[in-house]
Amino acid sequence: MLEDKNPQRTPVSQLGEFGLIDHLTKGFDIKHSSTLKGIGDDAAVLDFKNKKTVVSTDLLIEGVHFDLSYMPLKHLGYKAVVVNLSDIAAMNAKPTQITVSIAVSNRFPLEAMEELFGGIALAAKVYNIDVIGGDTTSSQKGLIISITAIGEANEDEIVYRNNAKENDLLVVSGDLGSAYMGLQVLEREKQVFQVNPNNQPDLDAYTYLIERQLKPEARTDIKELLEKLEVKPTAMIDISDGLSSELLHICKQSNVGCNLFEEKIPVDPQFIDVCEEFNIDSTTIALNGGEDYELLFTIPLEDFDKIKANPNFTVIGHITQASEGVNLITRANTKIPLKARGWDALDA
Amino acid sequence: MLEDKNPQRTPVSQLGEFGLIDHLTKGFDIKHSSTLKGIGDDAAVLDFKNKKTVVSTDLLIEGVHFDLSYMPLKHLGYKAVVVNLSDIAAMNAKPTQITVSIAVSNRFPLEAMEELFGGIALAAKVYNIDVIGGDTTSSQKGLIISITAIGEANEDEIVYRNNAKENDLLVVSGDLGSAYMGLQVLEREKQVFQVNPNNQPDLDAYTYLIERQLKPEARTDIKELLEKLEVKPTAMIDISDGLSSELLHICKQSNVGCNLFEEKIPVDPQFIDVCEEFNIDSTTIALNGGEDYELLFTIPLEDFDKIKANPNFTVIGHITQASEGVNLITRANTKIPLKARGWDALDA
Repeated sequence: MLEDKNPQRTPVSQLGEFGLIDHLTKGFDIKHSSTLKGIGDDAAVLDFKNKKTVVSTDLLIEGVHFDLSYMPLKHLGYKAVVVNLSDIAAMNAKPTQITVSIAVSNRFPLEAMEELFGGIALAAKVYNIDVIGGDTTSSQKGLIISITAIGEANEDEIVYRNNAKENDLLVVSGDLGSAYMGLQVLEREKQVFQVNPNNQPDLDAYTYLIERQLKPEARTDIKELLEKLEVKPTAMIDISDGLSSELLHICKQSNVGCNLFEEKIPVDPQFIDVCEEFNIDSTTIALNGGEDYELLFTIPLEDFDKIKANPNFTVIGHITQASEGVNLITRANTKIPLKARGWDALDA
Repeated sequence: MLEDKNPQRTPVSQLGEFGLIDHLTKGFDIKHSSTLKGIGDDAAVLDFKNKKTVVSTDLLIEGVHFDLSYMPLKHLGYKAVVVNLSDIAAMNAKPTQITVSIAVSNRFPLEAMEELFGGIALAAKVYNIDVIGGDTTSSQKGLIISITAIGEANEDEIVYRNNAKENDLLVVSGDLGSAYMGLQVLEREKQVFQVNPNNQPDLDAYTYLIERQLKPEARTDIKELLEKLEVKPTAMIDISDGLSSELLHICKQSNVGCNLFEEKIPVDPQFIDVCEEFNIDSTTIALNGGEDYELLFTIPLEDFDKIKANPNFTVIGHITQASEGVNLITRANTKIPLKARGWDALDA
């Protein structure tokens, strides 16, 4: 395809702060009856009636949480919403609204902001949520995205991290590790590109991994799935920093231990191939990779029959007494204490 | 005072992300029965029962919204909370919770974060709000603060911007312009300091202005004040970008015009003195200065007697038909159309 040598670049300052918000949020319609007032006043007004309000917030910084050299802005907007909705899903609540604040340096023209908000709008549509407020401002350096997600749930539906019980089963949705290996593939291609900008990467063997990294989905479907199966988790968390790290959170806050079985950890065949190609231990990545946005939860042992045949779920271990510690049981049947080696935003 | 040549500088990374949040939020107790779960899970859980939920969010960027060369970190933490609570107050709602996300570059040691959170904790105490969540991460450059404020109100208490009616009175709380002139004084002293670091500034003549800039307060008291007076505003907004800008918002969204009387705009005597010293027109600053965090609202004409003797309020004009436009009536009795010249974050 011929490259457009003169892409349109409208300076954001041309619209002013209020003009920019109006312009970027034009297509954002209100879908929920709980949204009494969205964008356009000092604050949004919501009405959850007899339900509880669930609130989570995340701050994403260019160069720390994302790299625009391989993350298209539309994907970034989509992912920024997804990572917040994942936190609401991890409470077993239904996400309903978000606020979006953006700071950009003057290297971003209006067209770039339109791309970013295109991704935000798409996520809002796919996940059926209202964008109810936000803020746009300038930054000294790079792009900064702050999203607050709001959801609703009946009080008896909400699942915290601190109620896992001895003998509960440890269950995970989807598969793990692929988002991290997708990032490794993209990082490698970036380095190849820097050496030889004319090299056309062939990424066919990595499509699943790259999609898991660039366009993750939040498991907002799990709440309904579990309701249909008549299973209520005792504890739940989303896997953003890696399975080990999240498991340690559940065990610490529930004051329990656990045995996690290496052979049970669900991974994709493409993930295994690429770990071999990169000569990386796949279990290490599945345990510590992060950014999977799957849900990790515990259920009573007697509910095993209800979920065992469901392709969305894998039982990966069980809860023990706190004194037994948090352990990985390897394929060779040795017991190794788990440590969090997940991605730490402060080391990035 | 002797300077400590070796102030303690603990790298933030020493604690890790979770350790840092635990450390910084240790003293934050939960005060509201509406906070079912605060910090420590994937999301906070709130219960407003039959009240409505009010949500506002703001993103503050070093070098754009604040300058740490004259803004102490504790004041910054306090102010970051206040500017968000002001938005909740402007809905005639009661602020109850905030989330706080912080990104810092490695130039900030743990002790700096403790200062910042000290200011946040003080504001939470003064305004009786719960800190229910947040996020700490690293930034590529400078300090970034994102706060989401949440409040509650009965549906019939909430005041929007779009309901001002012809003949309504235009009322403002407190006085205007001082925060902006406080900033001018601080900017001047910064320049003096850069030329001669040994110069000790004498800021006695500017204490009120500097306090308005460095430690503003949110008018969360106005809701109760008006209730006691049995006055319900028809429209309300907080003055963050300047009186002109906010007045234009109310008039545009309510589809009305207004006459604002120059001689009625409330200002402090210290403000007048400093405008003279700086040779700046005081009305221009009172109209466009911004960061006052006072409330601007409209009330029915028949409520005039209820508020006329109250020292918290000044009637500064009245609402007209939209066709008459948004005008300043000068001391010389000439009519000048008002334009927003308020501080625009995108020009900063």
